[in-house]
Amino acid sequence: MSTKVTIIGAGSVVFSLGLVKDLCLTRSLKGSKVCFMDIDEERLDVVYRLAGRYAEDLGADLQFERTLERAAALREADFVINTATATHNEHFMKHRRELTARHGYFYAGTGMPEYHNLQLMLDVARDMERICPDAWMLLAGNPVFDGTTLMGRQTGIKVCGLCHGHYGYREIARTIGLDPDRVTWQAPGLNHNIWLTHFYHDGQDAYPRLESWIEKESAAYWRAKEEEGGVPTQMSLAAIHQYRMYGLMPVGDTPRGGGWWYHTDLETRQRWYGGSGGGDTPAGRDRIIKRKEEKFRQMKEAAYGTRIRPVDLFGDGKTTEQHIPIIDGLVNDHEGQFQVNVLNRGALAGIPDDVAVELPALVNRKGIQPLCVEPLPRKILLECIYPDWLQMERTLEALLSGDLSMMLYGILDSHQTRSYGQATAMLEALLHIEPNEPMAYIEDIEDHYRWPENWLEAPPEP
Amino acid sequence: MSTKVTIIGAGSVVFSLGLVKDLCLTRSLKGSKVCFMDIDEERLDVVYRLAGRYAEDLGADLQFERTLERAAALREADFVINTATATHNEHFMKHRRELTARHGYFYAGTGMPEYHNLQLMLDVARDMERICPDAWMLLAGNPVFDGTTLMGRQTGIKVCGLCHGHYGYREIARTIGLDPDRVTWQAPGLNHNIWLTHFYHDGQDAYPRLESWIEKESAAYWRAKEEEGGVPTQMSLAAIHQYRMYGLMPVGDTPRGGGWWYHTDLETRQRWYGGSGGGDTPAGRDRIIKRKEEKFRQMKEAAYGTRIRPVDLFGDGKTTEQHIPIIDGLVNDHEGQFQVNVLNRGALAGIPDDVAVELPALVNRKGIQPLCVEPLPRKILLECIYPDWLQMERTLEALLSGDLSMMLYGILDSHQTRSYGQATAMLEALLHIEPNEPMAYIEDIEDHYRWPENWLEAPPEP
Repeated sequence: MSTKVTIIGAGSVVFSLGLVKDLCLTRSLKGSKVCFMDIDEERLDVVYRLAGRYAEDLGADLQFERTLERAAALREADFVINTATATHNEHFMKHRRELTARHGYFYAGTGMPEYHNLQLMLDVARDMERICPDAWMLLAGNPVFDGTTLMGRQTGIKVCGLCHGHYGYREIARTIGLDPDRVTWQAPGLNHNIWLTHFYHDGQDAYPRLESWIEKESAAYWRAKEEEGGVPTQMSLAAIHQYRMYGLMPVGDTPRGGGWWYHTDLETRQRWYGGSGGGDTPAGRDRIIKRKEEKFRQMKEAAYGTRIRPVDLFGDGKTTEQHIPIIDGLVNDHEGQFQVNVLNRGALAGIPDDVAVELPALVNRKGIQPLCVEPLPRKILLECIYPDWLQMERTLEALLSGDLSMMLYGILDSHQTRSYGQATAMLEALLHIEPNEPMAYIEDIEDHYRWPENWLEAPPEP
Repeated sequence: MSTKVTIIGAGSVVFSLGLVKDLCLTRSLKGSKVCFMDIDEERLDVVYRLAGRYAEDLGADLQFERTLERAAALREADFVINTATATHNEHFMKHRRELTARHGYFYAGTGMPEYHNLQLMLDVARDMERICPDAWMLLAGNPVFDGTTLMGRQTGIKVCGLCHGHYGYREIARTIGLDPDRVTWQAPGLNHNIWLTHFYHDGQDAYPRLESWIEKESAAYWRAKEEEGGVPTQMSLAAIHQYRMYGLMPVGDTPRGGGWWYHTDLETRQRWYGGSGGGDTPAGRDRIIKRKEEKFRQMKEAAYGTRIRPVDLFGDGKTTEQHIPIIDGLVNDHEGQFQVNVLNRGALAGIPDDVAVELPALVNRKGIQPLCVEPLPRKILLECIYPDWLQMERTLEALLSGDLSMMLYGILDSHQTRSYGQATAMLEALLHIEPNEPMAYIEDIEDHYRWPENWLEAPPEP
């Protein structure tokens, strides 16, 4: 029987393209149906055409469908890859950054708990409960940590969150002169908050090599990278500082986060992340917008053009994304080890059972089975993991209770907030930000959240 | 057999005086021995003399001893009331406030985790394990939450932390026109973080009365109190604002804390706590220093003077402190209900078993037995209880690991800290603050804490 893979938010073209390529190159999944769903007809058409031409290029036996209707897309789905997002759109984020900057926030660090993307995830998961209750949801859109926990708790569907941040271990290895393919590693934690507990090269502990690199080579490396245009976050001074605080290297998106003190303003980011301040700056983000636009232009060319074929532009090699290999493992028993986000259920000590943790897992016909790993150091739990866990719990409680004062609390909890009045003004502005197109498909934020009864307006600022 | 009650830090004269008075007036404890221990010989003499004269005044049969040696004081003790503190000395605190103000902190809000008082508690508890392992420790000194948890986890002695903040329910009742003696109440949580879950007057829910007071009478009350010199924190706008956020009244020291946004500077405190800004301001604290000095002058007069007897100055009524009634309950089976801080062990849902919670308890010959109370609202757990719990855990981990970077993290975690450099400078200054006399009896803070291996100095501020 053929497998049906549905991609929600398929208009995220780069991502869909990678999935299509991996599917084409996974011969054991031949005959599968791929259903693209998006609310943006133009982007949907691009990915649909592109996929068809790519399959031709690679000689793959796949059927493609497209639809604007979520319910139709979910019918008979075996796997739902959810990459849909309401707010993670570069132009919307830029607009929001500019709005929040007028309220005194750097790089949108307002702390307001996520609403739209989580509500959207919940809507999709509830539809799946109704339409395809036995399907797997592979969550690709952020926030993976909050979303995996939310859907896992609130619905009966099988959820697995996926990210590629853990590949940061390869950058660490490469940078210090080791072959990433000869590395045995482990980095458990929460999504975007994972720590390199095991790091072996040819079976030998590679941390001493890292120590020696820091001592003897890091300064020259940073200078050279600056000249090349920027220091990779994974090997930035911020990452090494976190390593010194915690004794384990932070991996992937972990050094990109860390404490507020790395991120207060552009000058501070430049101190910790190198002269450009890294990607998470207004200028860094503008570069990303440019890159994405160029990529989309290429895709359209490959989808509709006559001179250029997809394989010419995007090659015939597999990506490093885990989605299709995991599907292959579950469907065809082609066993593999992956880094997944699933409800904990005891695999990582010190974290409640109903919280999504990021862990190595064995995937085969039996399912996705996380390895029970050793506990993280207590200091990492107390200063990194639990604060994130608590923020996630508040975000979910705000969403599920609809209590607007919890949104306010989130803003107050941002280290960038200087006064109660600044927080209430920022909240008002964010509630009334001009909605983008996807938001029309989600309950309006102002209908969803309400102040507690007899809410007390604060006295005026002095 | 006579009961021996040892008071560690007995030079805290107001507190010792109350204990002596309560002991004198608890006839079932007649024949008890009271041992005063302090490192300050002058203050120890004052309390010793005063106690003797007070017992004469009240015709009580008690024996008093005094000593400068902790080990001697603990020998054969049945109860150890620990009020000792290294840093909670008004003059030291004032000096520290002035130092931290020069680094940009208002009212010493640096966030550096407690060291001296906790280490002192641990030293006392370890001595008790050795010398009087069956005695009860009644902890009177702050931090009660951290200290009760620490001693309960690290030693085998019986520990109960006591505070009087819960009597705030009486102020609430009185202010809204109810008779506190006819109130049935409950306010569980963590010390300094307790919430009025039950509030009945003559068996009727008294919250509607509070609602009507807020609507119709609060404004006039605040104006009147301003004219009298200050609004009580328990009924301040800050307290009512917390009530609106959480649906339950915060009790005692709870409204005195709350979010950082009530406490950023004097003007902000004045908005929330009334025109004077309350006791937790530099000027408010100076008033407290004056009051304490005047009280100590009176005590000396009553201890050594010929014209004045203790009973003339301090009366012949019991205090509302719980220490002696609890001892009477444990020793003589004179059962009572008290508000205690003990390791949770399942009494308050959602809090780990090995964390000290504040709860109502029944005390009699069987021991101190907390009531299993209903869980607190999830919003209170997520925004008030868990953040405090996490901070306590970090404080204890810093103490037990001796990791100086955890002290730095505490300062970085203060909402008043603006940059990494400000935090490191504040840390250095606090480590080198001129030690006061009690600190000589505790391991030096600079010996106790060390940076992690190969600590990385931050790059210079721009």
